[in-house]
Amino acid sequence: MPQIDGDRLLADLKRLREFGRYETGVHRPTYSEVDVASRHWLADKFAEAALDPVIDGIGNVFGRANNASRRLLVGSHSETQPKGGWLDGALGVVYALELARAFAADPALSGLGIETVAWADEEGHYGNMLGSRSFTGRLDEAEIDACRSRDGVALRDALAQAGFAGRPRVAVEPERYLGYLEAHIEQGDTLDSTGRRIGVVEGIVGIWNWRVVLTGQQNHAGTTQMARRKDAGVAMVRLATQIHDRFAQIAGPRTVWTIGRMLVDPNAPSVVPGRAEMQVQARDIDTAVLARYRDVLVELAAACDRAGPCRCTVEELSQTEPRLMDPAFESAIEAAAEHRVPAGHIRMPSGAGHDAQVISHRLRAGMMFIPSLGGISHHWSEDTKEADIVLGAQVFADAAAAILKAG
Amino acid sequence: MPQIDGDRLLADLKRLREFGRYETGVHRPTYSEVDVASRHWLADKFAEAALDPVIDGIGNVFGRANNASRRLLVGSHSETQPKGGWLDGALGVVYALELARAFAADPALSGLGIETVAWADEEGHYGNMLGSRSFTGRLDEAEIDACRSRDGVALRDALAQAGFAGRPRVAVEPERYLGYLEAHIEQGDTLDSTGRRIGVVEGIVGIWNWRVVLTGQQNHAGTTQMARRKDAGVAMVRLATQIHDRFAQIAGPRTVWTIGRMLVDPNAPSVVPGRAEMQVQARDIDTAVLARYRDVLVELAAACDRAGPCRCTVEELSQTEPRLMDPAFESAIEAAAEHRVPAGHIRMPSGAGHDAQVISHRLRAGMMFIPSLGGISHHWSEDTKEADIVLGAQVFADAAAAILKAG
Repeated sequence: MPQIDGDRLLADLKRLREFGRYETGVHRPTYSEVDVASRHWLADKFAEAALDPVIDGIGNVFGRANNASRRLLVGSHSETQPKGGWLDGALGVVYALELARAFAADPALSGLGIETVAWADEEGHYGNMLGSRSFTGRLDEAEIDACRSRDGVALRDALAQAGFAGRPRVAVEPERYLGYLEAHIEQGDTLDSTGRRIGVVEGIVGIWNWRVVLTGQQNHAGTTQMARRKDAGVAMVRLATQIHDRFAQIAGPRTVWTIGRMLVDPNAPSVVPGRAEMQVQARDIDTAVLARYRDVLVELAAACDRAGPCRCTVEELSQTEPRLMDPAFESAIEAAAEHRVPAGHIRMPSGAGHDAQVISHRLRAGMMFIPSLGGISHHWSEDTKEADIVLGAQVFADAAAAILKAG
Repeated sequence: MPQIDGDRLLADLKRLREFGRYETGVHRPTYSEVDVASRHWLADKFAEAALDPVIDGIGNVFGRANNASRRLLVGSHSETQPKGGWLDGALGVVYALELARAFAADPALSGLGIETVAWADEEGHYGNMLGSRSFTGRLDEAEIDACRSRDGVALRDALAQAGFAGRPRVAVEPERYLGYLEAHIEQGDTLDSTGRRIGVVEGIVGIWNWRVVLTGQQNHAGTTQMARRKDAGVAMVRLATQIHDRFAQIAGPRTVWTIGRMLVDPNAPSVVPGRAEMQVQARDIDTAVLARYRDVLVELAAACDRAGPCRCTVEELSQTEPRLMDPAFESAIEAAAEHRVPAGHIRMPSGAGHDAQVISHRLRAGMMFIPSLGGISHHWSEDTKEADIVLGAQVFADAAAAILKAG
């Protein structure tokens, strides 16, 4: 079994946190000065672990295990959300580094290579999972030309400023790897609230987003009698209530749905709203459940439109498909967890998106979660107990060894 | 009977429109350069009608009928909404001017005085009905010190710029008048949609405003299971739906209610809303109805708070009391309308606020509506048929004569 060095692991996680530290978290947007510095630091750490470091044309940092006979690609992303947490992404990258060191130190694991990677821009500062999409051939040059940050900075300019422009982009060679493994904090409280310490990820949910628009007639709130009104705000709250009721009836065991954004126009106390819109989102591991949600939403909106007095339309904004993890990888993670912490693990979907869902199109993929204290995520106060961080790394290393040995 | 000169009336309305004309409407905010110029023009027109013109310290323009033995104060406001209509306010002021001229021209009406007024800032560019409140002693110097425009200009600076600072503010002498009359466009479509030409205003509705705040817990829309959510957006749409249902059950014949403003925080598609608020408004001529609305709102909010998972609070933002018009004035207007256009009139409340509601605290008050085409108001396209404008002036003059003769 590979032997994790918990102190070394925690020291490297804390060193990485210093690149853009904010309170107890980190502010390290992709391609910012601190992000570029952290990627060079990671390349140096990969080199120290006897890997060949490569930073490619989109900013992905690889530690290539060129001399291994069998390889797993292991990693996550290294940039953070604005004023984000210190573990989100970084944890999976430093786990990969620690696994590489542990494997290299164990003669019994000779020839079994951990190839490390820190993906670029999973957090979407410039685009949608740019690093893993570049690696899997799902990001073309035209999209890179078009990407901009929320502040309007062109991705091309950011890559040039970072010193990454003109470098080749590393593309996946599927025969090079047995598969891809990613560890991450849960970002929810399923583990923390139940005292479990390892989550075996069954898949990453599909996320379907719709925009619902209600069109009525803007009017004076004093002189327009109720019978004559076409109040888009009334139509929206009635439809939203129906959506919540019906969605609850057709949910799968872990389906989540959200109306997170609602707009009323002109949104003034003394004006009957002429227009309203809401964004409706559903997430599930099962495409059939998502399709059922879509059908019910379309049915409710059509009924609202027919009933009047407002018009109602539904527009599909985006659909990501659920991505199942590799069953053999799941079993390996579960067996490793059972060995180190019997009954302290659970199979679960990931409600958030991860690079593993992109990689899973080209490689067998597996994911493992460790607890998030209080389920807090995308906030600098995000945290995990150090004992859970170390335990997670050992379980992850055991699972990787089992997979590599099995071939 | 006084004899209205329709051509003269329409010509003066069209001349007044030129101060700040915008498309077929007017952009004439209170104390703007065009508003000040229009007030001087009105003072000159009042003087031509043998009235003594006075512009006071808040910008009210009076045409004083000092030699009359009995007087009615007649008028409305002369500034407009931003890019507003050409008749809103201006109609009532030019009606007053035309009545003064018609009365002066008729020896049979000798001694019966129409005293004209153009109130300042009924539209609220700097404050709340500043002119009529100043006249009735409901605006103190401290409030004038504090008032600012939406652009942050101090009322004191605007008055100085306009040349009105330092002038005395004219205060009502209740014994000077039999009462106050105001004509206005309806701003709704009750008259226009039923083919009636005169509205006899029974009173001006009270407007009660509340803020309802829902407090839940902001969370990740992917990793937070439904059972653990405290979604303030869900709580808001469910409560709003209940409010609309219950309010419909307890409405009086002309009650109107509106949820015109809704805010969700942080209002992002992938974030469970942690806070939501809405502004709820009810308008009715009957305080008992408004009190019923308040009680039901408080009851529904308390039930929402008890049921959880979100907290719910109701805050009273403002309450204006309904103001009934003088029954004898109503009868005089109704009789004049019946004489000129049999069965072409209707008694109705005003759903919008007017200076007459302020004046009614100190003088007997009456109001008359003429149709608004399509019910359009507070927009430059607002309009009324010329024949209705002229007919309205004649009915209004007849009613004023009857009131003055009756003493």
